[in-house]
Amino acid sequence: MAQISFSRRVRRTPFSEGVEAAGVKAYTVYNRMLLPTVFESVEYDYRHLKDHVQVWDVAVERQVELRGPDAGRLMQMLTPRDLRGVLPGRCAYVPIVDETGGMLNDPVAVKLAEDRWWISIADSDLLFWVKGVAQGYRLDVLVDEPDVSPLAVQGPKAEELMVRVFGDTIRDVRFFRFGMFEFEGRQLAVARSGYSKQGGFEIYVEGSDLGMPLWNRLFEAGEDLQVRAGCPNLIERIESGLLSYGNDMTDDNTPHECGLGRFCDTATAIGCVGRDALLRVAKEGPVQQIRPISIEGEIPACDRVWPIYGNGKRVGQVTSAAWSPDFETNVAIGMVKMTHWDPGTTIEVETQDGMRLARVEETFWN
Amino acid sequence: MAQISFSRRVRRTPFSEGVEAAGVKAYTVYNRMLLPTVFESVEYDYRHLKDHVQVWDVAVERQVELRGPDAGRLMQMLTPRDLRGVLPGRCAYVPIVDETGGMLNDPVAVKLAEDRWWISIADSDLLFWVKGVAQGYRLDVLVDEPDVSPLAVQGPKAEELMVRVFGDTIRDVRFFRFGMFEFEGRQLAVARSGYSKQGGFEIYVEGSDLGMPLWNRLFEAGEDLQVRAGCPNLIERIESGLLSYGNDMTDDNTPHECGLGRFCDTATAIGCVGRDALLRVAKEGPVQQIRPISIEGEIPACDRVWPIYGNGKRVGQVTSAAWSPDFETNVAIGMVKMTHWDPGTTIEVETQDGMRLARVEETFWN
Repeated sequence: MAQISFSRRVRRTPFSEGVEAAGVKAYTVYNRMLLPTVFESVEYDYRHLKDHVQVWDVAVERQVELRGPDAGRLMQMLTPRDLRGVLPGRCAYVPIVDETGGMLNDPVAVKLAEDRWWISIADSDLLFWVKGVAQGYRLDVLVDEPDVSPLAVQGPKAEELMVRVFGDTIRDVRFFRFGMFEFEGRQLAVARSGYSKQGGFEIYVEGSDLGMPLWNRLFEAGEDLQVRAGCPNLIERIESGLLSYGNDMTDDNTPHECGLGRFCDTATAIGCVGRDALLRVAKEGPVQQIRPISIEGEIPACDRVWPIYGNGKRVGQVTSAAWSPDFETNVAIGMVKMTHWDPGTTIEVETQDGMRLARVEETFWN
Repeated sequence: MAQISFSRRVRRTPFSEGVEAAGVKAYTVYNRMLLPTVFESVEYDYRHLKDHVQVWDVAVERQVELRGPDAGRLMQMLTPRDLRGVLPGRCAYVPIVDETGGMLNDPVAVKLAEDRWWISIADSDLLFWVKGVAQGYRLDVLVDEPDVSPLAVQGPKAEELMVRVFGDTIRDVRFFRFGMFEFEGRQLAVARSGYSKQGGFEIYVEGSDLGMPLWNRLFEAGEDLQVRAGCPNLIERIESGLLSYGNDMTDDNTPHECGLGRFCDTATAIGCVGRDALLRVAKEGPVQQIRPISIEGEIPACDRVWPIYGNGKRVGQVTSAAWSPDFETNVAIGMVKMTHWDPGTTIEVETQDGMRLARVEETFWN
């Protein structure tokens, strides 16, 4: 166990005061900002998330804003997903790739208007790639990081809590859509989305000054719902098959390897800088792919790549793993070669504490 | 106090095993990788660094490699420093700026050959900006992150220790130059450089497999020199005026504001994408600048921007601060407006624990 050192460089969020008052026990750093990882314990937080409602400081989902006449063109250059069908008011999960088809991020893009997008990023300085491309192609677009910090409300009672703060019309927001809702006289985008499969919303808090007032309002309104401070939960997100950029995939991987081929329209995504590179993999399919894996025995924290062996040869790697109380097995996410990716295949996983028997599963657990 | 959570995303380094065995107590995350911050205590580590020799895992100084016919052209596009005088075998501190003149990083560039550079980066994904620019301008160059992890040897006995491992000729390496030295049959670049003012070297360990063998060799060879595992020390680096990207400057700042105007040759750095934007600031000078500041009274950890007030108005911000045992004051780094930047000016600094009296100093302490 080791402490985390604080400095300005590892940025606090508009909700940090609330997170500290709630007794946060551990953090990670994500997009050079503090992301809580544990309040009571990972298992306690998990149980509570599945039964009640939690408020999550996910300000680390920084936004890259594209604004101007070339915003749409630039957005399409970034992703192999054909964006022509994405209308204002919609969110879209968009793999971002470089010219080799390697993934640079796997964000949710929010189309605010024809000439204005937010890219709600995973853990990489996507801003730099987007600025570099915009500069190199001399596009007529402003690219920057606005003062927008997402706050997630997740869990089976999330809708009930949101209704109390934003009113009944929040029920009409469909999955991966957003609406504009008033809070303290300001309009905030609220989407039905979030990094769990327990249901819920993400509020794009525009203006740091609104952070603690909104945090406090949610806790006041949710007292009888047993609302607690929470955070993306390692166990729940693995059970649900929610990938983590930097853990389960990096710029070494194509979207197809990550099971994201359905978000790649290589035939029609004209302008995407990685399109040429992805044409072949789209046609022939990847040689390795993300798979759910169950691991036997006791396992340590998955803080590094765990090589996977099949018949004595290296055939992949596990990159996220945790004990699941609900499914009574170690749930894991790994990248497995074609020769060993069929469900039911027995493999071995090399942890820092030794080799473990494991099995490729048919589907994720949730 | 809070723990740090480990995951693959927050990368281990080739030296992590040694760092753990040495009893690391705290980490920060830097370039999405673990950077130790405390072994015994910040004050104990500080005293030892000034008296003896330390081995630092600074693998977080990731390299961006430029290789190919356009490597030199691309390198000059990134920085307002005129690189024509930088010969192979030299290191150069190069502010990196975007098209607005805002700093994206403040790395040391290592010129390996006419067509090959390493940029040894501070805390931002500079790789993405460089790749984006190279792609947009369709340059004939390969840009990637090689398997190179710097290991620093710092402190007054650093040269003595390095001689024992690499031989007497290490003495001939001048400041900010590097030479190629053999270790276990492989050639490693060794520069006289490092993020302290106690003297020392940085070894660019090419090949993760060499990490622990080199770590162990240094500790065996330095036992009677009282060698210890260490890390960039908060107190020492503030005393020495060593700026930290993300703490003391961000992309909001020009190099001139950071006191780096002497590294900007805006008249002759033809091709730099930020040159136009910097011409005016180069001519007129900045309106705010980095200053050494001493603060009275007890101060908490500087984990956020501390506003500076002069005559009741906001005139800047402190971004790094620590108690200095040797100079018996709180040493600090801040950005101060022209109206209040003269040495001797009395100001007030607002910490999270309240207002403190402070003073703009003439020079840094070391």
